[in-house]
Amino acid sequence: RTYALGIVPGDGIGPEVTACAVGVLDAAERLFGFSTTRETIPAGARHYLATGELFEGAVREKLQAKDAILFGAMGDPAVAPGILERGFILAMRQAFDQAVNLRPVRLYPGVRTPIADLEPERCDLVIVRENTEGAYVGRGSTVHAGTANAVAVQESVNTRAGVERVVDYAFRLAAGRRNKVTLCHKTNILVEAGKLWQETFDAVAARYPGVETDYVHVDAMCFHLPVSPERFDVVVTDNLFGDIITDLGAVIQGGLGVAASANLNLDGSAPSMFEAIHGSAPDIAGRGLANPAGAVLSLAMCLAHLGEAAAAKAVETAVVAVLGQMDGLSGADMGGSTDEVGRRIVDALESA
Amino acid sequence: RTYALGIVPGDGIGPEVTACAVGVLDAAERLFGFSTTRETIPAGARHYLATGELFEGAVREKLQAKDAILFGAMGDPAVAPGILERGFILAMRQAFDQAVNLRPVRLYPGVRTPIADLEPERCDLVIVRENTEGAYVGRGSTVHAGTANAVAVQESVNTRAGVERVVDYAFRLAAGRRNKVTLCHKTNILVEAGKLWQETFDAVAARYPGVETDYVHVDAMCFHLPVSPERFDVVVTDNLFGDIITDLGAVIQGGLGVAASANLNLDGSAPSMFEAIHGSAPDIAGRGLANPAGAVLSLAMCLAHLGEAAAAKAVETAVVAVLGQMDGLSGADMGGSTDEVGRRIVDALESA
Ligand SMILES: CC(C)[C@H](C(=O)O)[C@@H](O)C(=O)O
Ligand SMILES: CC(C)[C@H](C(=O)O)[C@@H](O)C(=O)O
Repeated sequence: RTYALGIVPGDGIGPEVTACAVGVLDAAERLFGFSTTRETIPAGARHYLATGELFEGAVREKLQAKDAILFGAMGDPAVAPGILERGFILAMRQAFDQAVNLRPVRLYPGVRTPIADLEPERCDLVIVRENTEGAYVGRGSTVHAGTANAVAVQESVNTRAGVERVVDYAFRLAAGRRNKVTLCHKTNILVEAGKLWQETFDAVAARYPGVETDYVHVDAMCFHLPVSPERFDVVVTDNLFGDIITDLGAVIQGGLGVAASANLNLDGSAPSMFEAIHGSAPDIAGRGLANPAGAVLSLAMCLAHLGEAAAAKAVETAVVAVLGQMDGLSGADMGGSTDEVGRRIVDALESA
Repeated sequence: RTYALGIVPGDGIGPEVTACAVGVLDAAERLFGFSTTRETIPAGARHYLATGELFEGAVREKLQAKDAILFGAMGDPAVAPGILERGFILAMRQAFDQAVNLRPVRLYPGVRTPIADLEPERCDLVIVRENTEGAYVGRGSTVHAGTANAVAVQESVNTRAGVERVVDYAFRLAAGRRNKVTLCHKTNILVEAGKLWQETFDAVAARYPGVETDYVHVDAMCFHLPVSPERFDVVVTDNLFGDIITDLGAVIQGGLGVAASANLNLDGSAPSMFEAIHGSAPDIAGRGLANPAGAVLSLAMCLAHLGEAAAAKAVETAVVAVLGQMDGLSGADMGGSTDEVGRRIVDALESA
C-alpha cells in the first residue's frame, strides 16, 4: 500500500513538530509494510508574504491529489490576524469539504492536567465539531461602519444536510465506543439554529436506538467538562462552540501540546487533514520547546483514516508510553527536547 | 436611606437562597442604618403555568418602580426550555436596558477549586459581559424548515452604542482595579462583529491611556483562564462569549454556588438586577443543599450599587469568612445546611 501525503509544515513550531511526525511515519512504514510518497507544500506566513498565495491555485491542486494532508501550524505576527486562518485553514476545510473536525479529549496516564484529582479513566471522550458552516461561513454586514451608528450583523448559517452528516458521524462513532452522544448547543437562546440542530439530532438519534442521548448547553458544558468528563462519550456541536470547547478539552487533557485533531472529508471527494490543536506559537519556535505529541497523535489519526489501523494503534501506544515517561513535562518545561521526544517515540515504536 | 427592592425568588433553589440573602439584608440594615421596602413578585414556572404571565404587565410595572431587584433563579422541567429564560430573564435585561452583566471571578480563601495549585491571590478578575444584544437579540430565520433542505440563519446584532457603553464601563472599572482590560472575541472569524468590537475597544482605550489593553480569542480564553487567571483584571466580551466564559469562571472560583452577578442598568432609567449565577437546580430544590453564598454575594453587589459601600463590603467579608470555615464544602456536600450557612453569615456580619 502506498499513500500520497501532502505535508504542510507551515509557521512557527509547525515545521519542528511536523519533522517529528514524519520521523515517526518513517519508522511506522518500516514496521508495518506500507509506504508513502510525500510532497512538502510551502505555505504559511513566509510564503504568503513572498508570493501573496494562500489556499488556491497550485497549492490547492497539489493537495487535492493527495490521500491525506499532514498540517503543522499557521500564523505569524508579520501577517495580519485572520488572513492565514481564513485564507488557508478555513478555505481548505471548506474547499475540501472537511465536514467533521474530530478532537479526542483523552487524559493519557502520566500527563499532568491542571484539573485536580482527575484520573485518566474518567477522561476519554471525543468532540465532533461541525467544520464547514455555522458562524464560520464568514457572512455578515456592517452599516454606518466607523460611525457612532455602526451596526454589525454576523450570521451563522446552518443547513440540515451539513448538520446531519456531522451528527450521523457522531452516532456512528459512539456505536463503536460507549454508546452515548451529547448535543452541545445553546438552543434556549439561538432559537433558529438551535431548532435545526435539535430536530436533526433527534431524527438521527431515531436511527440509532441503541445509543443514549443527552443535551448540554454550551455554557453548562464549560462547567461539566472539567469536573465530570466521564459524563461524556461523544459530544457533537457546531463550529463555533466546537472551537471553544475543544480548547477547554485540550486544557483538561494536559495542554495543547498533546491534543490531536482530524479534519475529515466524509465522501472521499477530497483529502482529509490532520493537525495538532496547538497554533504556531512563534514565541517558542525553533527552540525545541514544542511538544510534538499532538502532531504525532494527529499522524496516528491519519494512519487510522488511511486504513492502517495497526500502525495507527502502535503509534498512539508509543506516544502514550513516552508521555508517561515525560512525567508531565510539556511545552516550556521540556527544555529543548522536541527532537528528543520524537526519537523516544520512534524507539518506543520500534521496541514494541 | 430607604430603598425599594423587588424580590423575585423564582423556581427551584431560588426561594431558599433568596431567603438567606434577605436574612443577611435584615442584619445589614440593623447594623448600617439604612432600610428597604420589599415587594416579593411571584414569577417563574408555577406562576407562568397558572397565569401565562412572564415579564409583562403588572410584573414589569411593579419592578420598574424599584431601586433594585434581587433575583433567585428561574427554570423548571414543567416549562419548555427557553420560555422562562427568554420570556423573563432576557426580556427583563432588555426592557430594563441592563447593559452590563458583571461577573466577578474571585477564588476566596478556603474555597475548593477544581484547578490544581491555584492560589486565591492569582484569581481575582471581573468579566464584563454585554447583556442586551449580540446573538441574544433572538433574530434569525429558517427556510424549508423541517425538510432535508432546511437552512437556519441565526444573527448576532452588534451596535456601536451598545458595545461602547459596555467597553467604557470595563475601562472605568479597571481604572479602579489593576488597570488592565482584555477584549475577548473571535475577531479572526467573526469579521463584521469582530471589527466593530475591536474598533470600539481601541477608541475607548484611547480615552484611558493609563489602562493596559490585551486581546484574547474566546477559544484561547478557555485555555488561559483556568491556568493563568492572574493574566486578567477586567475582561470585556460579547453576550454569547460572556455566557460561556463566565460559567468557566465559576468553575475556577469553586463552583456556581459561590458565583455572583449583577445586571446593570447604566443610565438609571430602570432598576438593575442581582442574581447568583447558578440556575434553579430543581433536582436539589427544597433539600437545603444549595449554597447561598452566590445569592448573598449578589446582595453585596446590590448594596454597593445602591451606594451602601460599607454594608456591601461587610456582607462580602462575612461570606468570605464563612466560606473559609466551610472547608470547601458546597452544593451536595453541604448536607442540608443552606439556612445554617445563611445564619453563619449573619453571625459573622454581626460579630465583625
Ligand atoms: C486558526 C483558527 C481559524 C482555528 C479555528 O477557529 O477553527 C483554530 O482555532 C482551530 O480551532 O482549529
Ligand atoms: C438562563 C439563560 C438565559 C442565561 C443566559 O444565557 O444568559 C444564563 O445562562 C446566564 O448566564 O445568565
